[in-house]
Amino acid sequence: MSEAYQWLKAKEQDALVVEEKTDRTDVVTQLDRGLERFIIGKIEESFPDDAILGEEKQAHKADWQFHSPQWVIDPIDGTMNFVQGRRHYGHILAFYDGQELIFGLLVEGDTGNMLMAVKGEGVYYKGEKLTPPVLTIEQGLVEISGHMPKTYPLATNAFIEQALGIRVTGSAALAIIDMALGARVGYVAGIFAPWDMVVARLIAQEWGWRLTDFDGADIPLEASSDAIFASPTVYPHLLAAIQLDRKK
Amino acid sequence: MSEAYQWLKAKEQDALVVEEKTDRTDVVTQLDRGLERFIIGKIEESFPDDAILGEEKQAHKADWQFHSPQWVIDPIDGTMNFVQGRRHYGHILAFYDGQELIFGLLVEGDTGNMLMAVKGEGVYYKGEKLTPPVLTIEQGLVEISGHMPKTYPLATNAFIEQALGIRVTGSAALAIIDMALGARVGYVAGIFAPWDMVVARLIAQEWGWRLTDFDGADIPLEASSDAIFASPTVYPHLLAAIQLDRKK
Repeated sequence: MSEAYQWLKAKEQDALVVEEKTDRTDVVTQLDRGLERFIIGKIEESFPDDAILGEEKQAHKADWQFHSPQWVIDPIDGTMNFVQGRRHYGHILAFYDGQELIFGLLVEGDTGNMLMAVKGEGVYYKGEKLTPPVLTIEQGLVEISGHMPKTYPLATNAFIEQALGIRVTGSAALAIIDMALGARVGYVAGIFAPWDMVVARLIAQEWGWRLTDFDGADIPLEASSDAIFASPTVYPHLLAAIQLDRKK
Repeated sequence: MSEAYQWLKAKEQDALVVEEKTDRTDVVTQLDRGLERFIIGKIEESFPDDAILGEEKQAHKADWQFHSPQWVIDPIDGTMNFVQGRRHYGHILAFYDGQELIFGLLVEGDTGNMLMAVKGEGVYYKGEKLTPPVLTIEQGLVEISGHMPKTYPLATNAFIEQALGIRVTGSAALAIIDMALGARVGYVAGIFAPWDMVVARLIAQEWGWRLTDFDGADIPLEASSDAIFASPTVYPHLLAAIQLDRKK
């Protein structure tokens, strides 16, 4: 991943070519695609038989089966942030061995700092092992995705009142790093793709944290879904807040 | 300011002592106070007669007159972010010569990168002169303060619909840097203290941008106020959105 980080930094002066995918808020640039090809090339050199699931490689959606070794990558997570000033984005990479997730990496684009979660080994940031933050909802900030105030106004207000405040970062990678460091106490996302939540999944496994959809159900590895990610202490408050809007 | 940045980095391992000021979301730590004393000491060494306005030095509020040379500092801007993981905060310093603002500095705590705005000289980031970003509201992200979805829900929804999305960073210093770099197209803050907006003021002067309260009026240098900061292209849309909630 440090090679991938360098690949992108070397292209800092390149003008961006921005394309819309599903709508004007869902975009991709030539650097997302180029960096994904670069990472895929590196994986294929060493593991030619493994499947690869990438955000920009959506044509292969039928292959997202997680029944054989599978890499999951999002070359530039927070593409909208990246397009707006090339700031506040991240890189995501994870590996599933055919039976379970083995490791996941998140890299901060602004600093190059890396979080690593490894099955059975815990969670590391900048090479140091992390202790799971122990915080109540009243002691922390809640990360939400940018549409939540519109689609879940009662839940958003509940977070503002119960927690120390809300934050909207616009990158799952950066928000999950903030969760692991205690800079956020909960993360509520209106839509999460498989790559967005893959490292949160590993952290949840390692620390006994919760990652579910808005109904409290587990999310299959290959599914996109709304999502709540938090410690068992905070999680019930987030789920209860979401129900306020559901019952309207 | 690089000395101030180093002062804080050297104390990275110190446990934080957090005190509430007006309520549980308005906090200060011994490092805010210590760093403010450090910066004030540096200023007083060189400019013993100048007045100093600092966030943690509120006892001297009567001195905020801006009729003689005046320094404005916020040693740690985004203290709530700082308390939650020591991430995503900034440092603010500006100088008023008795008649007008002369220069202002914003430093990113995460990277040490600095923005500098100088009267008549323009705006610099990492030593390079910036060109004012030319964006419409449809082409950018709108920064809001964390209470806006609750206190200005219609405006918040208008931003979500009109712009490419909202972001909540929780630090005026970082958000103003994002504004200067085009990573945000507008900034709408429910409450801004004099130090929060002092560098935005200089940028507005240099680039012909707007900085007003929610009624569209200028904000006196010593006042705390709600605030809208944007280019002349984007500003009317932000002001109009705020009026939606005012007319309820």
